[in-house]
Amino acid sequence: MQFHHHGYVSGDPRIQEAAGTGIDRPEELPDEMDVLIVGTGPAGMITAAQLSQFPDITTRIVERRPGRLAIGQADGIQARSVETFQAFGFAEQIIQEAYRITEMCFWKPDPADPSRIIRTARPVDDELGVSEFPHLIVNQARVLDYFGDVMRTSPTRMTPDYGWEFVSLEVDDAAQHPVAVTLARTAGPDEGALRVVRAKYVVGCDGARSRVREQIGCTLAGDQANHAWGVMDALAVTDFPDIRTKCAIQSEAGSILLIPREGGYLFRMYVDLGEVAADDHGAVRRTSLDQIIAQANAILHPYTLDVKDVAWHSVYEVGHRVTDRFDDVLPDDLGSRTPRVFITGDACHTHSAKAGQGMNVSMQDGFNLGWKLAHVLEGRSPAELLSTYSAERQVVAQNLIDFDKEWSALMAAKPEDLPSPSELEDFYVRTAEFPAGFMTEYTPSLITADSSHQALATGFPVGKRFRSAPVTRVCDGNPVHLGHHARADGRWRIYVFADAAAPAAGEPGPVPALAEWLTTSSSSPLAATPADADPDAWFDVKVIYQQPHSEVDLGAAVPAAFLPRVGPFELVDYEKVYAAAPADDIFDARGVSRDGAIVVVRPDQYVSAVLPLTATDELATFFAPLLAARPVSAGV
Amino acid sequence: MQFHHHGYVSGDPRIQEAAGTGIDRPEELPDEMDVLIVGTGPAGMITAAQLSQFPDITTRIVERRPGRLAIGQADGIQARSVETFQAFGFAEQIIQEAYRITEMCFWKPDPADPSRIIRTARPVDDELGVSEFPHLIVNQARVLDYFGDVMRTSPTRMTPDYGWEFVSLEVDDAAQHPVAVTLARTAGPDEGALRVVRAKYVVGCDGARSRVREQIGCTLAGDQANHAWGVMDALAVTDFPDIRTKCAIQSEAGSILLIPREGGYLFRMYVDLGEVAADDHGAVRRTSLDQIIAQANAILHPYTLDVKDVAWHSVYEVGHRVTDRFDDVLPDDLGSRTPRVFITGDACHTHSAKAGQGMNVSMQDGFNLGWKLAHVLEGRSPAELLSTYSAERQVVAQNLIDFDKEWSALMAAKPEDLPSPSELEDFYVRTAEFPAGFMTEYTPSLITADSSHQALATGFPVGKRFRSAPVTRVCDGNPVHLGHHARADGRWRIYVFADAAAPAAGEPGPVPALAEWLTTSSSSPLAATPADADPDAWFDVKVIYQQPHSEVDLGAAVPAAFLPRVGPFELVDYEKVYAAAPADDIFDARGVSRDGAIVVVRPDQYVSAVLPLTATDELATFFAPLLAARPVSAGV
Ligand SMILES: Cc1cc2nc3c(=O)[nH]c(=O)nc-3n(C[C@H](O)[C@H](O)[C@H](O)COP(=O)(O)OP(=O)(O)OC[C@H]3O[C@@H](n4cnc5c(N)ncnc54)[C@H](O)[C@@H]3O)c2cc1C
Ligand SMILES: Cc1cc2nc3c(=O)[nH]c(=O)nc-3n(C[C@H](O)[C@H](O)[C@H](O)COP(=O)(O)OP(=O)(O)OC[C@H]3O[C@@H](n4cnc5c(N)ncnc54)[C@H](O)[C@@H]3O)c2cc1C
Repeated sequence: MQFHHHGYVSGDPRIQEAAGTGIDRPEELPDEMDVLIVGTGPAGMITAAQLSQFPDITTRIVERRPGRLAIGQADGIQARSVETFQAFGFAEQIIQEAYRITEMCFWKPDPADPSRIIRTARPVDDELGVSEFPHLIVNQARVLDYFGDVMRTSPTRMTPDYGWEFVSLEVDDAAQHPVAVTLARTAGPDEGALRVVRAKYVVGCDGARSRVREQIGCTLAGDQANHAWGVMDALAVTDFPDIRTKCAIQSEAGSILLIPREGGYLFRMYVDLGEVAADDHGAVRRTSLDQIIAQANAILHPYTLDVKDVAWHSVYEVGHRVTDRFDDVLPDDLGSRTPRVFITGDACHTHSAKAGQGMNVSMQDGFNLGWKLAHVLEGRSPAELLSTYSAERQVVAQNLIDFDKEWSALMAAKPEDLPSPSELEDFYVRTAEFPAGFMTEYTPSLITADSSHQALATGFPVGKRFRSAPVTRVCDGNPVHLGHHARADGRWRIYVFADAAAPAAGEPGPVPALAEWLTTSSSSPLAATPADADPDAWFDVKVIYQQPHSEVDLGAAVPAAFLPRVGPFELVDYEKVYAAAPADDIFDARGVSRDGAIVVVRPDQYVSAVLPLTATDELATFFAPLLAARPVSAGV
Repeated sequence: MQFHHHGYVSGDPRIQEAAGTGIDRPEELPDEMDVLIVGTGPAGMITAAQLSQFPDITTRIVERRPGRLAIGQADGIQARSVETFQAFGFAEQIIQEAYRITEMCFWKPDPADPSRIIRTARPVDDELGVSEFPHLIVNQARVLDYFGDVMRTSPTRMTPDYGWEFVSLEVDDAAQHPVAVTLARTAGPDEGALRVVRAKYVVGCDGARSRVREQIGCTLAGDQANHAWGVMDALAVTDFPDIRTKCAIQSEAGSILLIPREGGYLFRMYVDLGEVAADDHGAVRRTSLDQIIAQANAILHPYTLDVKDVAWHSVYEVGHRVTDRFDDVLPDDLGSRTPRVFITGDACHTHSAKAGQGMNVSMQDGFNLGWKLAHVLEGRSPAELLSTYSAERQVVAQNLIDFDKEWSALMAAKPEDLPSPSELEDFYVRTAEFPAGFMTEYTPSLITADSSHQALATGFPVGKRFRSAPVTRVCDGNPVHLGHHARADGRWRIYVFADAAAPAAGEPGPVPALAEWLTTSSSSPLAATPADADPDAWFDVKVIYQQPHSEVDLGAAVPAAFLPRVGPFELVDYEKVYAAAPADDIFDARGVSRDGAIVVVRPDQYVSAVLPLTATDELATFFAPLLAARPVSAGV
């Protein structure tokens, strides 16, 4: 955490100084705004939290409910999401209070007496170590609370506008604020009153029955039928020994997914209620809590479940569906028009609860979109950047649906119908990277270069999320994670992995040459940084040396590009210079060439490019179209 | 973190439910209270935070200042303090924002040109790995804030009473509230007004010029003269390469202790101003900031320091002094009277800032006293328990002063006066455990057994703090730290390290026998637990098996003593059963006998006893005098 460089901070350094639109933020929803977000689910809240970091952008987030979510909905948090929380500053806090999955148990009918279940396997959860972060379970409400804290303590001092329902919208591309949105008050004395507000952009994060989606003419395609599960968050006494372990339980009486929950006592059980027939007419939704509990006891036999208290229960009915586009640009207008309205999360894709994907993928949608909106609104980047959102995330959603279908089918299948008795466990272990959230791989685009230089850093695949690794911070010898310095502040990152030469004052070499080009060339991306901003305001440039930290002399050997002068006192930022940790060398761990490499990382943490240290032309070419911005108010 | 067992907690689980005196806590200082704490420094705040966990005890903490501390004072946090913060629930949060010391650099005159300094050594800070927690630097104000958060979110909803100055006290042992305290209002409309309040106990945490100390007739003995240091918290630009590393710098022009601070930019410098002459008459205290900066530049030559902003500066003048007793029991009354008034922290002992001890030792004073007051006030333990406070902490203070004198003398000495050129570094490394806070070793007493069975657990020395180690939690296979489950909740801990036999249902053995005795025998300490409280309300009993967690069957093989039923729903607490981690076996790491052992740990985390598994008699004998309580209101 870096602070005090604008003067001494006496209180909690997590509370940023109010700035820009945060200084006099109106409590009431204004008539005009830059971005209107609809819905305070995970997709909406992360988008809002990201935008809240930009002092000059006015973002409001409306929600139909009168206040915060209190119970229920999703609870599975993939490691990728925890990485994301780290960027927003609350990973450690949420880990403290969450349940951590380290292994999963599989239970099946005992071949000797199929009326009884027995444990058949206990694979560990993340055998491959795909992330330094754990796989967690915690209620969705707490995730939303943490994003709420991020917003509230951001320079813009954002809070959700509760009690407003999105009704409809109209887009007039020629207007200053092209999207006119009709909202209805759902709480307070003027309940029912309609109001029209105008925004430059609208983001529909309004869930599976999205009205924003309907308004921009997208439809969900996919399964005809839904699958239904009776779900309860329960406190109980049981002799089932794995009650605090995630379990897939298949018995003659049906199947259960058991998810232990935060706090040590609560657990969630999904009891399979099967495919919902076309002529069901909501019958399945009338399944009572008593029926769910009775069914759970039947499945758990010979164990019993004495339920003492149920905090939440529901019949969760869902199909595998996805929309063909995530914004309001019709296929015919692609290339000639840029989007004004977006949809994210469940509004775009729904899937079973089984792989614990819903909340996670929805957050990655919002993380993908947030910085793009900010860069366009701030005038850093042209509006074309916004088209990459739908292009990138629609593919991810489709892959996810395909994966989830396979997993759900396996979970729902009778053991005797599976090709091999261990099919379920095998699939779980084989595909671990997927549910952990790391299979997303963006293809070449405006923001993803080709992978022709991938060999220079095989552990940082272009298009995949930047996978952190331990390093030593030179200035204080602290062992740190390289990726954890990257916060959700909307900056591009340029990691310069040095060649083998020891850093030395005045010696020529590719690192000093690159550093010189970055800070002085007019074709360097850094040249676009506004003159009145800190030199690292748009691009966060770091260097990682191969030598132990004690051999890196900060006094004279490290180029100034990596020691920028920041804040009103122009103090040196010493936290951009790293050394390979002798016991865990990042060059080895991530397959980085000993000749060095440049790794360019997007604000949402995906690798955009891997380049040789000398590739200043390619670097310039990559960033040129992203920095050729016209102010958005000029009618983009 | 464990919660939900009293019903679903929707919000932040760190916020405990209000209970007892917290339900209608009066905002205004009441006329009568159980405990009155004077002073909101580290000693006072930890005492208050500890007492705030007891719903039936009314504690108030008064402070002369009108509000929270904002800047200055101490900043060094030993690993022992971070362990303590963990018990109070905020270690991870404060680590996030603090500076972490991993090594220390020593600078000396260059033999080739003694007018210039050069780096001569760079020892790592905690070579021995005495704790799983780091050594930190963060401003005292933040430490106080965190304790304030603990109080505020405790069942008693405590907050400090600012703007009250302690004036005097009188003790009448026969009264229901024996201590009458006169306070003066120092803020608000009634500034200057006097008021008398009555308390059962008073804790003077009012710093080096303690008036509580004066009132109970203690005096500080020690050095005649003070040593003075010019200290500043500064933002600066410098070419000194180790500005982000802790440094002891000795040059021909004097000496500096450099402490990098939280946030990446700020640092503190202590510039030695030497021994204060008897006829100084405050002259040294008039040393100006400009003089301090000029002196710093002279010492750093050939490097320069361009100071841009100074958040705080002071001339810190201090001597090595300690009082002979820490309570109001005169030597002649020892054994016949128990204390009513205590002093803690700087009120009892002062020392140089050099070893970064002040805040740390002061907190351990408060941690030592807090639970004792609570146990006596709640009627768990007799008032004799309170006499152990002064007995234990006075020795610690004396040892500390001795250590600190030696360290300060070395730091202040001219290089040529030292016996060997590396004397300073050698001493630093040799004595690392001391400044880290781990040399405290209580001798046998009412609460510390003798060490006749020490051989059963050599890594848990009786009288020293319980040193945590990694284990696996059986119920969910989570890798956890055994000691981190122990919170500052005032409970005694009984760790049962099992013998080598695998846990098995119905099999006899020392662990089942001990478990049976603990839960059913009338001589078991647990028998004292109030009938309407959870079975683990006073004693937190845990078991650690030698087998891997997958071989421990929670269903039937683990005795009920380790799976207590808690809360209104009588749910099973599964988080007291552990297994040795295969890769890092706690039995090996802490020298625990394969025949098993009992380790008894005090509420403030010091080991009270190591016993064989069969030593039920000794366990009963140890606890008997501690549980023979009469209600305190009966005129104790
Ligand atoms: C009742 C329910 C139960 C669920 N149960 C499970 C489960 O058991 N397991 C699981 O994995 N996942 C479950 N989910 C799905 C999971 O919560 C979602 O995948 C995840 O929350 C997706 O996030 P999102 O932000 O896209 O949408 P959501 O979290 O659904 O958020 C949408 C938000 O928009 C608001 N909103 C909707 N329409 C409007 C409007 N017109 N105007 C203003 N605000 C509007 C809603 O009130 C809501 O707050 C459940 C979802 C729901 C709604
Ligand atoms: C001005 C100052 C500068 C210091 N600088 C350093 C430093 O540079 N480095 C270092 O290591 N240590 C420094 N210390 C020492 C370090 O802060 C202490 O060792 C540590 O705070 C001890 O904690 P404590 O709780 O015993 O006392 P303190 O932190 O001193 O707390 C005592 C509290 O009691 C209050 N108080 C005092 N008298 C009364 C009264 N009559 N009525 C009500 N309230 C009262 C005070 O306002 C204060 O809040 C400094 C202390 C002070 C006071």
